[in-house]
Amino acid sequence: MEIRLIPVANRANPDFFNHTTAVVFDVLRATSSIVTALAAGYQRVYPATTKDAALTLAQRYGYVLAGERGGLKIEGFPHGNSPLEFWPGPGTAQGVGMNRLVLTTSNGTAAIQRAAGASRVLIGSLLNARAVALAALQEGRDIILVCAGSEGQFSLEDTLGAGFVLKEIVTSADTPPSMDDLAMAAYNLAGYYSQNPLTGLLASSHGQKLQKLGHLDDLHWCSQLNRFDLVPVLRGDYVA
Amino acid sequence: MEIRLIPVANRANPDFFNHTTAVVFDVLRATSSIVTALAAGYQRVYPATTKDAALTLAQRYGYVLAGERGGLKIEGFPHGNSPLEFWPGPGTAQGVGMNRLVLTTSNGTAAIQRAAGASRVLIGSLLNARAVALAALQEGRDIILVCAGSEGQFSLEDTLGAGFVLKEIVTSADTPPSMDDLAMAAYNLAGYYSQNPLTGLLASSHGQKLQKLGHLDDLHWCSQLNRFDLVPVLRGDYVA
Repeated sequence: MEIRLIPVANRANPDFFNHTTAVVFDVLRATSSIVTALAAGYQRVYPATTKDAALTLAQRYGYVLAGERGGLKIEGFPHGNSPLEFWPGPGTAQGVGMNRLVLTTSNGTAAIQRAAGASRVLIGSLLNARAVALAALQEGRDIILVCAGSEGQFSLEDTLGAGFVLKEIVTSADTPPSMDDLAMAAYNLAGYYSQNPLTGLLASSHGQKLQKLGHLDDLHWCSQLNRFDLVPVLRGDYVA
Repeated sequence: MEIRLIPVANRANPDFFNHTTAVVFDVLRATSSIVTALAAGYQRVYPATTKDAALTLAQRYGYVLAGERGGLKIEGFPHGNSPLEFWPGPGTAQGVGMNRLVLTTSNGTAAIQRAAGASRVLIGSLLNARAVALAALQEGRDIILVCAGSEGQFSLEDTLGAGFVLKEIVTSADTPPSMDDLAMAAYNLAGYYSQNPLTGLLASSHGQKLQKLGHLDDLHWCSQLNRFDLVPVLRGDYVA
């Protein structure tokens, strides 16, 4: 089994994902929010790449609407992209459509769409690192770890999330997987931060930006390793 | 002071280097070989991007000729790209031109040319990590750490080399520099491998390729942290 890491999703050729299992990471905060929302009782999360697409979907079906741009809640949207907004889920099974969440974010939701050509697309984060690692192993294909990145740049927190999943894969695989150099670097980074994942999130540039915006609580939340035994899978236009 | 890291030199916009100090890394093996050759007594190393340019220069002036492609010595060239071939320098000051080395390699020499627009271009490696860090600090500008990468891909060994230079910069800087996420990742990687840099080189894909080609000795050589107190600087078309 070969494992490769893509540092910035929007630079990847979509054909690259053919016949692979992709695991997508936007640790701060889209994929952490998706995992949290599903854990809180949402049955589906629709990742939308544009504000308009998100708004249309939410209005048409009465879904819960959430989104951010540049770390800030989109004006007029009831929710931003803080996982804590979905915990315990504000709209959990309160009525028709209310257990569906539409989410659009700066980087993460586009990264999920970018990987859609993979045979299977899983949603990764620190929160579900072990569960997603075991699921990816079970799929039996080569694995591509897809980091959303931050505004087109390498992001420390996504690479770290991928690294924690790699650690779980290496622990559980029957034979050691072959890794490319970026995957190896991510694996080692997770080793470096294994005693305190939060320090990695705090050191990242996006983590610092979120702190300035008053979202330190989110960093604490997103740094919880293996809090949930949950593997969100992309199924057409939604994650469940 | 801001420090950024470029993971693959040939993807960088040349304008990016304006008003910066660049430190170029091709740890396996071009920049390690350049540092070694200068330490061995060569007075100048000419980085050539093509075989023909290297051959022409060497023939015209009687310089020592060295180069590789894909890890293999170029056919007809007297020397490949093993730093051990220049230690103790085979052509050291043996006559006119014989203390000049012309070197062309798969990734490293092009990376040096790519960074040529920087206000100062320094040659980095594990062998001279501390010396080059102090020199870069003294320049006083923002610093760009330029990894050659391997065939257009991220390389673990170059990132590790940049990380060791970063560790020395952080140790010696009066005020902590600001780092982008890739620089932070490199810094942490160097922390992870600080007890045994060789294991990082052994784990890299290019390191594994070189081992298969019989160059394990080169990995040992290139992993020697701070062996030389030497800072090669690009001066027009040569390094000295």
